[in-house]
Amino acid sequence: MLQDWFQKNSEFDYFLVSKTENIYYFSQFWGSFGWLLISKDGKKTLITDGRYAETAQRLDCAFRLFNADFTAKFGKSITRKVACEESLTLGSLEKLKKYFPKADFAPQKNIIETLRRVKNDTEIGAIEAAQDHVDNVLLPFLKVHLKAGITEQSLNFKLQQVLQSEGKFGLSFPSIIAFGENSSRPHHVSGERRLRLGDNILIDCGTTHNHYCSDMTRNFVFGESSAKYIAKYEMLLTAQQATNAKITAGASSQAVDQFCRDALGPEAPYFTHSLGHGVGLEIHELPNLSQRSDFTLQTNEVVTNEPGLYYPGEFGIRIEDLVLVTDDHPRILSRFPKDLLSFSEDGHVQILVKAA
Amino acid sequence: MLQDWFQKNSEFDYFLVSKTENIYYFSQFWGSFGWLLISKDGKKTLITDGRYAETAQRLDCAFRLFNADFTAKFGKSITRKVACEESLTLGSLEKLKKYFPKADFAPQKNIIETLRRVKNDTEIGAIEAAQDHVDNVLLPFLKVHLKAGITEQSLNFKLQQVLQSEGKFGLSFPSIIAFGENSSRPHHVSGERRLRLGDNILIDCGTTHNHYCSDMTRNFVFGESSAKYIAKYEMLLTAQQATNAKITAGASSQAVDQFCRDALGPEAPYFTHSLGHGVGLEIHELPNLSQRSDFTLQTNEVVTNEPGLYYPGEFGIRIEDLVLVTDDHPRILSRFPKDLLSFSEDGHVQILVKAA
Repeated sequence: MLQDWFQKNSEFDYFLVSKTENIYYFSQFWGSFGWLLISKDGKKTLITDGRYAETAQRLDCAFRLFNADFTAKFGKSITRKVACEESLTLGSLEKLKKYFPKADFAPQKNIIETLRRVKNDTEIGAIEAAQDHVDNVLLPFLKVHLKAGITEQSLNFKLQQVLQSEGKFGLSFPSIIAFGENSSRPHHVSGERRLRLGDNILIDCGTTHNHYCSDMTRNFVFGESSAKYIAKYEMLLTAQQATNAKITAGASSQAVDQFCRDALGPEAPYFTHSLGHGVGLEIHELPNLSQRSDFTLQTNEVVTNEPGLYYPGEFGIRIEDLVLVTDDHPRILSRFPKDLLSFSEDGHVQILVKAA
Repeated sequence: MLQDWFQKNSEFDYFLVSKTENIYYFSQFWGSFGWLLISKDGKKTLITDGRYAETAQRLDCAFRLFNADFTAKFGKSITRKVACEESLTLGSLEKLKKYFPKADFAPQKNIIETLRRVKNDTEIGAIEAAQDHVDNVLLPFLKVHLKAGITEQSLNFKLQQVLQSEGKFGLSFPSIIAFGENSSRPHHVSGERRLRLGDNILIDCGTTHNHYCSDMTRNFVFGESSAKYIAKYEMLLTAQQATNAKITAGASSQAVDQFCRDALGPEAPYFTHSLGHGVGLEIHELPNLSQRSDFTLQTNEVVTNEPGLYYPGEFGIRIEDLVLVTDDHPRILSRFPKDLLSFSEDGHVQILVKAA
């Protein structure tokens, strides 16, 4: 609750919220321009321009039109210490100082982002709906579209169409599809590389539902696979599954990341990024699960668990689940199987590695 | 040239560029993380992480890996006054001060954005390619997809697919499609409103090519049109075309905006936004063409000319061209006709208003 923060920081009378996701979190307003002024007694005032006036008046907030009179009519009335977000640009802060000439702005770090870590049922439902959609469309999509000769870019474009389902879902980020040796680059941009029999395929994708994000990575094989790929897949899968079990309220983010590295044993040097991140209104939000992070996991946080193994010039594998933290066993929101599936040219599917 | 700025601001030894578009402008590097350090003697150093190392080494810049040693190995060597951009967030500036502990950062406003106003031939070519693509695909698209009962959202989703052409082009912004009374809101978000015979249709869309944007708005009718709509369309078209002719090197942005309002005469109060904006690596960039702006247009700037007339509860019309400023007659980059076209249910097209 922001009221708790105000109580602990009694020198502040207001919090001026400017980040789109943070405004939405408190008001359900999502727009390209606006501020939400929250006073210490909990009163919320949405400030936006005429384009959004109709929308703004339907929300459970007071509304102030931002127009030429704004500073004289309202801005000058804010005379005390006002918290603002560190995500403001230097230029925006300069403008705010003009619009609120008597306010004393003090940037704060991650106050609202910290509140946003723990999700309520509505938020969890939205994330789950976004992930369920991916779980439902991915396998039928692959059966139809995995054909020799298709480029990464073309397959990715078609996937993004299917993920959006005529605009009913958004994309939580531009999805990643990498074939063969390209999968060894964790943030590969899909290009002209064509699919060949014997290729492994990495797909990292997600959608949004009511502005809440989902995120999942799975790996496939087109035709036959090398023994090395299967062996590394099995190692990574074992470590990833064991790590899932550690994602529980009270666990340390750093310890969970370290657990996975330990579970990978001699392969750990090929795991070249951090273990995961929170997911919600932003695709990357608090908490980070990494070697340098220092968070204690809480019930109803949603985080990714996404270790990877990358062998430059050969292949990369990343297995990523979306995980709801609970008091005991975590709930895995990404229900798409983690079996290693091989697709033949005619869309026939075979299980090469069966997940526990 | 940034070197001119360094000469006039001799207290600075470096410019640390952080905005993606500004980094690209100087280096052709487009990534989600990186800085470009430019020294007063013109040396450019790209700083990014391991994900982009391969890309970075192919560019015409020095390259520094951002890793755990960065501050000790390089950051501390930057000891003088460093210009940075006002688009930096407060949080990012705090981080920069840690990574470059001996540098003295001073935020600057719109230095690089001002350089970017005037485009070279490559940039103009990219903008033109993005716009040509829209000009080529829009009419065939409408002939196939304008059917009674289609929703704005569904039509818009299909349009965005066609605009992207299997990923060969990007979207310069989420396109706007509004039917009937919805078109009176300049930034309407396409929703469940279904197309009916007699509706007017507003479409505002653009693509990107090599990261450069295009932007155009056109208006159509499905079936028969009201006499009022046609009359207002003719007025707006006349004013818009007359304004195009005023977009020439040496003109004042404020005067061009005012010219259009004057040309609209008694309808001017229904024109509720500014006339236009620069277009380039960003969809909205300098110069602004508005009543409060103060720019002198220069040869090889690319700007929009987009007056609109909005009648709440009835309809809105906006006619937007993409215009290349020259020494005399401007070159109109959006070649899609400004005739008012009416579509029948079977895709037959009739001209209701012929543009000059």
